[in-house]
Amino acid sequence: MRKIKELGEFGLIQHLTSSLNFRASDSILGIGDDCAVYPVKSGMKEVISTDALVEDIHFKLSTTTPEALGRKALSVSLSDIAAMGGTPKRVLVTLGLPERVSLLFLDKLYSGFNEICNQFEVELAGGDTVSSPKCFFINIAVIGEAKRVFTRKGAKPGDLIFVTGTLGDSSLGLKLIGKKIKGGKDNKFLINRHLDPTPRVKEAGILARSKLDITSMIDISDGLVQDLYHICKASNVGARIYQDRLPQSPEFARTCGKNSISPLPLLLNGGEDYELLFTLPADGAKKLTRQFLKAKVFVTQVGEIALKPRKVLLELRDGTMKTLPESEGFNHF
Amino acid sequence: MRKIKELGEFGLIQHLTSSLNFRASDSILGIGDDCAVYPVKSGMKEVISTDALVEDIHFKLSTTTPEALGRKALSVSLSDIAAMGGTPKRVLVTLGLPERVSLLFLDKLYSGFNEICNQFEVELAGGDTVSSPKCFFINIAVIGEAKRVFTRKGAKPGDLIFVTGTLGDSSLGLKLIGKKIKGGKDNKFLINRHLDPTPRVKEAGILARSKLDITSMIDISDGLVQDLYHICKASNVGARIYQDRLPQSPEFARTCGKNSISPLPLLLNGGEDYELLFTLPADGAKKLTRQFLKAKVFVTQVGEIALKPRKVLLELRDGTMKTLPESEGFNHF
Repeated sequence: MRKIKELGEFGLIQHLTSSLNFRASDSILGIGDDCAVYPVKSGMKEVISTDALVEDIHFKLSTTTPEALGRKALSVSLSDIAAMGGTPKRVLVTLGLPERVSLLFLDKLYSGFNEICNQFEVELAGGDTVSSPKCFFINIAVIGEAKRVFTRKGAKPGDLIFVTGTLGDSSLGLKLIGKKIKGGKDNKFLINRHLDPTPRVKEAGILARSKLDITSMIDISDGLVQDLYHICKASNVGARIYQDRLPQSPEFARTCGKNSISPLPLLLNGGEDYELLFTLPADGAKKLTRQFLKAKVFVTQVGEIALKPRKVLLELRDGTMKTLPESEGFNHF
Repeated sequence: MRKIKELGEFGLIQHLTSSLNFRASDSILGIGDDCAVYPVKSGMKEVISTDALVEDIHFKLSTTTPEALGRKALSVSLSDIAAMGGTPKRVLVTLGLPERVSLLFLDKLYSGFNEICNQFEVELAGGDTVSSPKCFFINIAVIGEAKRVFTRKGAKPGDLIFVTGTLGDSSLGLKLIGKKIKGGKDNKFLINRHLDPTPRVKEAGILARSKLDITSMIDISDGLVQDLYHICKASNVGARIYQDRLPQSPEFARTCGKNSISPLPLLLNGGEDYELLFTLPADGAKKLTRQFLKAKVFVTQVGEIALKPRKVLLELRDGTMKTLPESEGFNHF
């Protein structure tokens, strides 16, 4: 295997990008010039976002594989586009590389990128590859398109609150990594939900194409409560959620049970589930459920939007109400 | 002054972005949601690129100011858009922050971003701010638009080769930083050309709006010869340039003279000038010169494209020819 040094900057870029095989049918110019060039589609909106992953802050090389890391780096960015009801179209990948990162590692990382690009028909349109002796980082900029966009602002009192999929799997998976906790297959599922999350691009597409009046949407990266606070603040409303409606995977429920782990904190505050959290007026609920059932997508109503107080309240199983605190976000500073 | 830790991630983002004052008149949604949202302009092409700067590789905090760093980080990205004949429209900024970077530093960095955003009417549309304990990095993703794009491919034998501005200033400036070399005002000019380059957005706009048949274009980031090789390889042609036509600033010429520095290597291989290098058929030369003169933009014909050999040749002052070697790029690995 050749070494990165021998390839040089241009050789490395050529080597890595030669393995990519999804190419947008309408791209005017892909990798290899100063910029990538695309036509704009009249009537569409452009949706853009960026996300960085830093070694030992967002991932550990000892607990993930380069393929999973590549998939996750793209998936979390695609999730931001999905959160707006958009379709991701292209990504720009920046790699900051210490010398210890090998060419073999990068090949596997790109194989992960390639899988997600193929799965979601996203083109890796360019990037930058730089030396970064002291830390390994990945930055993804993503560009998508949308006919209509769903923002955090717009939730109205009386709207119902929905989440796709199940909650807490990712944070429980993170707890399990490297620990000797009973579980077998369940552990594998949960850890995988953390290391290799699925961006809800398909689900966002269903919502965008539906005639449903989605009043607000976000992806759950900081945890259900935190992200619901984002919606409440932007929409100037409050919310009430119900303990017994928070969707759990069987794997999550079994693992919490077997190991005496309290599920509620994980369901409420566990981050990185990358499920969609959205609101719509009550009269749309039936149609939503029907459409998601047809598409075999799991969706749960977890609560409703309230005018006051401008807080997120939790109704516990015994009927008592609790005001949930807002965190400052994932404060890694 | 408050500390970054006290602000938290969301507080920090709000604090920093509150100082920005350029906002695109057509933006649908700026900073503050999962993505920024823009309308697409029918008939235009989208031009995208990304660039990372890593401390001690691309900049040193001991030799630049935070304001200049902010300006340069954006300028080098805007230069990529200019290199395609595009107009930069919006940027996404990722900051990887070690604890030692203070809020005051970030305020000044953002003041530099803000200056460039205002000068070039570019919106800082979003980004990501992450903890990066071991290294400070900045990643800029830039999105521009273009009616027609100028790529590296398309130079034809007989085309004339032009550069905007002057060559070698930035690399001479880099040499001068921290050294006790005679110069005064000249040193300041040259160092400034390195620390605070001007992206040739205005010049690219003139070329794009002109009816000139620009056959290829690139910005000079790796040095004249290296970037000319990029054009030659992409266009499958060779090139001949002339020693006595390479444009020097008076400051460059005087500083080289006074300090017995050989100017030629810097003119040929000095990187980071961020001038435009482009080709066009000979019959367009007069019109080009007239248009640039009118706009008070300095442009010089430095050579011409040749069919063979597929090399960059230099005609020295004494008439002898020399084949210039191609480097592997700025090999920082």
